[in-house]
Amino acid sequence: MSIILHAPLDMHLHLRDEKMLANIAPLSSHTFSGGLVMPNLVPPVCSREEIIAYKERILKAIGTDRFTPYMTLFFKPTYDRSFLESVKDEVTALKLYPAGITTNSEGGVSGFDIEELRPALEAMSDLEIPLCIHGETNGFVMDREAQFVPIYEKLASAFPKLKIIMEHITTKASVEALDRFKNLYATITVHHLIITLDDVAGGMLRPHLFCKPIAKRPEDKEALLKVALEGHPKVMFGSDSAPHPQHAKESCGCAAGVFTAPIALQLLAELFEKEGASVEKLQAFVSDNAQNIYGITPSSKRIVLERTPFKVPDMYHDVVPMYAGEEIAYSLKEVLYA
Amino acid sequence: MSIILHAPLDMHLHLRDEKMLANIAPLSSHTFSGGLVMPNLVPPVCSREEIIAYKERILKAIGTDRFTPYMTLFFKPTYDRSFLESVKDEVTALKLYPAGITTNSEGGVSGFDIEELRPALEAMSDLEIPLCIHGETNGFVMDREAQFVPIYEKLASAFPKLKIIMEHITTKASVEALDRFKNLYATITVHHLIITLDDVAGGMLRPHLFCKPIAKRPEDKEALLKVALEGHPKVMFGSDSAPHPQHAKESCGCAAGVFTAPIALQLLAELFEKEGASVEKLQAFVSDNAQNIYGITPSSKRIVLERTPFKVPDMYHDVVPMYAGEEIAYSLKEVLYA
Repeated sequence: MSIILHAPLDMHLHLRDEKMLANIAPLSSHTFSGGLVMPNLVPPVCSREEIIAYKERILKAIGTDRFTPYMTLFFKPTYDRSFLESVKDEVTALKLYPAGITTNSEGGVSGFDIEELRPALEAMSDLEIPLCIHGETNGFVMDREAQFVPIYEKLASAFPKLKIIMEHITTKASVEALDRFKNLYATITVHHLIITLDDVAGGMLRPHLFCKPIAKRPEDKEALLKVALEGHPKVMFGSDSAPHPQHAKESCGCAAGVFTAPIALQLLAELFEKEGASVEKLQAFVSDNAQNIYGITPSSKRIVLERTPFKVPDMYHDVVPMYAGEEIAYSLKEVLYA
Repeated sequence: MSIILHAPLDMHLHLRDEKMLANIAPLSSHTFSGGLVMPNLVPPVCSREEIIAYKERILKAIGTDRFTPYMTLFFKPTYDRSFLESVKDEVTALKLYPAGITTNSEGGVSGFDIEELRPALEAMSDLEIPLCIHGETNGFVMDREAQFVPIYEKLASAFPKLKIIMEHITTKASVEALDRFKNLYATITVHHLIITLDDVAGGMLRPHLFCKPIAKRPEDKEALLKVALEGHPKVMFGSDSAPHPQHAKESCGCAAGVFTAPIALQLLAELFEKEGASVEKLQAFVSDNAQNIYGITPSSKRIVLERTPFKVPDMYHDVVPMYAGEEIAYSLKEVLYA
């Protein structure tokens, strides 16, 4: 048995830079038609020149025109309209990080004063540039995302024509916010559809399942699954695949991030099948919804997945993937173009 | 400034066996007058002969008669009265583990059927042998202890003269159960008075702060602190100091346990001072309450702690302690006998 996915998109992707970029970008470009590339390099991607240069480095690393890196700019409240106009053609979205909330986010937003944010966000709204947000406060780890929901709602109210994407949502609270505001959208990772905090810290401690936002409670996972499986039109797949070298994960202070890019579609095929959801819903989740929300048309590519067990490699270069060394139900059979 | 603690007791202690025992037991025997030694070796300590042999190995490892290892037996529902009578003189308590709930607990209790447990628990009640319980269900990691509280209460009701010690409690729910049943008592670790899940997984992942039960929410920590700081007479210090070799903590699947034995009293002195609690309350928490609850009289020993910074070693043999390489406020000045 095999299934075919058309032009899958990964709408939240960390491609890193230099050697890591060279190692891992081809793993995404092989099975996806495009991906929304996060700007949190060191230093973050903050100018037109930096976007163009980073995009060139990505294209060189992937060596194919059959994958589109949809570029993002690191959001700063100081951006003015003329700057945003000048970058509009190069970016698909801006990415807002609360300051210090995750890997390389130190230069992000502190406090969410609407008047301080108004010039930049009104300009983005007028220019129809979506705003992607890592929505966490610096509160208690299990509450951070739910505590951020009022900020999502405040922004969604204040800028009703601005498309706001709640990135990598992990809680029932965020899912519930989706339908309260016309201009709120969301990405969901594959790992947050599969694991809870139990998998990270319920048995042994599992550093390779540790990420930000951290996996939450069973009822949160159920809420995420529901909207993903029904192909909810405001919900897109975004892997948040975040590679770190093995030594940065298996040590005294483990870095946050789960690496799923090369197995994400296979895991989603297995999950949707197990949960009795149709391939059409999976297609909506992994591509069609994102095309509609972002107004993008990725290059055509068909991914043929086969229901044959696949043993996940222990490592991709120096990165340990989710399910390293374990068997998953679906394999990549072939990639067809045109 | 210095403070003196009389005959401190660690009422929940893992001393392990063989080389680890030889390495770490002297660290406890130096600053404590005694400790309740957990029986979860591989295989667990289940017979009179095993208790006697293990006690001998401990005494050999510590090489002093100024520390009393209060021995425990691994509880099994199959123990009958004559067996319990035969071990009574050798044990201070029995330790009940739900099956598979923590390190080396595979042979523990499955299900908590009162009638199945009645013969053993009635005999223990008659013989005045306390029952220590690791109270967690196999539910979601943040809920396990709170879900176990009804089992504590069921046991406390069914065996009203049996002293039941809720071991290493971590939640507000357990604290609240304390005063509802005359025969419920509790131990609290030093790390659960200091950390929450935020410290384990809120920033980087910290394997050396990962333990079972896992550290919970801020309001749970506050509830634990309250009863510890007030010297609540049903609450005792038990470090649950649980050494693992460094490689077992800093790896793909990190073992559960925080190692605090050599710095526990120093940390408690710092904490009680910071929170404005008196040395008398600390004395109650670290010794007097346990003496009253268990009816034990430890050998006299005075621990003089001085308010001088102490840099915690990176390692004690192959074990990484809590606060490795960091400075804490109190140092051990001297140990006085008689």
